[in-house]
Amino acid sequence: MNKLNKLKVREELRTLDKVSYASEHIDLPEGGIDCYEGCNPYGFPPELIEEAQAFDLNKLGPYPHSTAIFDGLKEYFKGQVFLEPENLMITDGSISALYIINNLFSEKGSKVLGIQPQFPDQEASLKLNGMIYEAVSMRREDNYKIDTQEILDRIDSNGHELSMIYIDNPNNPTGQIINCDIIEQIIKKAEPYGIAVVIDEAFGDFMSNENSAIKYLEKYENLIMVRTMSKGFGLAGLRIGYIIAAKPVIACMRKLRDPYMVNEFARELAGAALLQSHHIWEYIAEFAKQKREIRSVIGDNLKMAETCDTVSICLLYHEDKSVDLKKMFYDRGVLCVSGDTFNSLDKSFVRMRLPKTDEFPILLEAVKNINQSK
Amino acid sequence: MNKLNKLKVREELRTLDKVSYASEHIDLPEGGIDCYEGCNPYGFPPELIEEAQAFDLNKLGPYPHSTAIFDGLKEYFKGQVFLEPENLMITDGSISALYIINNLFSEKGSKVLGIQPQFPDQEASLKLNGMIYEAVSMRREDNYKIDTQEILDRIDSNGHELSMIYIDNPNNPTGQIINCDIIEQIIKKAEPYGIAVVIDEAFGDFMSNENSAIKYLEKYENLIMVRTMSKGFGLAGLRIGYIIAAKPVIACMRKLRDPYMVNEFARELAGAALLQSHHIWEYIAEFAKQKREIRSVIGDNLKMAETCDTVSICLLYHEDKSVDLKKMFYDRGVLCVSGDTFNSLDKSFVRMRLPKTDEFPILLEAVKNINQSK
Repeated sequence: MNKLNKLKVREELRTLDKVSYASEHIDLPEGGIDCYEGCNPYGFPPELIEEAQAFDLNKLGPYPHSTAIFDGLKEYFKGQVFLEPENLMITDGSISALYIINNLFSEKGSKVLGIQPQFPDQEASLKLNGMIYEAVSMRREDNYKIDTQEILDRIDSNGHELSMIYIDNPNNPTGQIINCDIIEQIIKKAEPYGIAVVIDEAFGDFMSNENSAIKYLEKYENLIMVRTMSKGFGLAGLRIGYIIAAKPVIACMRKLRDPYMVNEFARELAGAALLQSHHIWEYIAEFAKQKREIRSVIGDNLKMAETCDTVSICLLYHEDKSVDLKKMFYDRGVLCVSGDTFNSLDKSFVRMRLPKTDEFPILLEAVKNINQSK
Repeated sequence: MNKLNKLKVREELRTLDKVSYASEHIDLPEGGIDCYEGCNPYGFPPELIEEAQAFDLNKLGPYPHSTAIFDGLKEYFKGQVFLEPENLMITDGSISALYIINNLFSEKGSKVLGIQPQFPDQEASLKLNGMIYEAVSMRREDNYKIDTQEILDRIDSNGHELSMIYIDNPNNPTGQIINCDIIEQIIKKAEPYGIAVVIDEAFGDFMSNENSAIKYLEKYENLIMVRTMSKGFGLAGLRIGYIIAAKPVIACMRKLRDPYMVNEFARELAGAALLQSHHIWEYIAEFAKQKREIRSVIGDNLKMAETCDTVSICLLYHEDKSVDLKKMFYDRGVLCVSGDTFNSLDKSFVRMRLPKTDEFPILLEAVKNINQSK
């Protein structure tokens, strides 16, 4: 990186590394299963095959103008919110949504409160934008349950210093869900301080829409909600995320990007997918069953952190802090994310994204085996 | 925007507006032709239809990992450069490329030298990132030919203050091309000052690859080249741009984004398109013919600024500075971009993106008619 010294690149970019589990290459164990990436192992709603085949390829010539995603979201969140086009920004995955949001508040030294562990790319992005990241830690003695009271207390004690609060709900890596009533308390308490509350519902399609923060859109202007089509809707390869926020906030974000982000094919397919959300509840039932089965064989060595059974991910940890748990799973045919890519965790943790039902026996066997070994 | 005052949004975003001709809605005159958006009126290479139909939709489930664009670029720039994967970043259109590049250097108050007029979204992005934009102006008495000597002189006089030089080559809106020898002089002169030279070749597929700055990649670490598949390759709806730069520069940019930008469908299709570049020369011949024809009927009232005939856009201006030239064209069935979205220009200018051959008579008639009126 020394060679960069010649160019006048921002200091943070010279001195900080980015920690992330997102990778261009996935190294699956031979004959093993992928529990690494956060995508939906069941893929997308099968109805999309026909939609994709019917796509008019001539639409790839002009700039994209389709509003299919907005139309789909109106239907998907029907009854929760009155959505207008000016409340929505679509982005290249939810990570691009976070990059845009962070840029809104990236005054050097501005403070952001998060929880830890949480989505590591967001922490990295904040720091690389020159912002200061602080976090409320989940504690081992609570089995890593989020202490929401501490978040509220921090606003009381420190609110005037904060630009943003960032909460992933469901939380990544644990898969636990904060009740929307508590989310509202946080938004409400943050509002008089002018703190933006970013609720990242990347895994939100694995919880009931009734628990989404979207219903507070009209009530609070400091709420910024983020979602993606990558997880529940199984369209990670399509790269679509979106931001829902008050109109003046979205108008401000529009200054930071062009109106063409996300290609026309992806816009139409995502719009169609939003009308087929009923499939997600089938997957959810499978994930819940898997978590119950894992819990039934998990023993004294291996633990599952606080989680919600409907969510596709969970955090497993070993009582022996010296083990490399990712390697233990890898050796047993399961590729998962090492805890050491998450702030405050280490190699004795893994994030496990649950597999398809037919691959689950390999994971269950690995869990049993690791629990019994040593 | 007052309502935003509650949130701690960056000052520039509160106070500055974004000027851009990019729009979600295109308002075509009835029975008229679209000469507005910079896309290729001929669309993409026809071979892509088959490629798209053969695309394996199951690839939309997992995160995108295709390297087809890299493979395609290696072939497309064969003989010009030895490209490695670490020299390349793919982005959601070239505008997203510019956003990432600007973020590298967005230290508050850092100075950027451009030319004017040029791509307005870049100027807007720089300013909205808190940077200071200065420009070498094209002059009416030179028929808006870029004064490259002045760029070189500014580096001599002001080099230690500059973080970046931004040049779109071909220039948007004029469509004129700076010879690569002069581009090299600029890069070379900027190097000892640590100035990044961003050469935006968004319209670069309309010039010979031999004039691309890409050949200086191995020689200068301060060169950052940007391209898009939206113009020459006719894939604006697919949203693909890319950055080519020295490995340490790309490594630094990777800290600012995830590796998944651009969906799998778009990656494969763009990769395939890069192998079908021969079509572009057919379009180029048509554009060149159209520019010659326009020039032959253009008279005392209407002028065409310095341009290169192979490029799909040109700048037209009226001798009477009080006219609304966009409106004059609109009333004659031609939608084009008003000069007032470009710094240093006004309503008596338009950027015209040339149409397909079969639509050209409408444009030619409009040119004749406007020239004769008044």
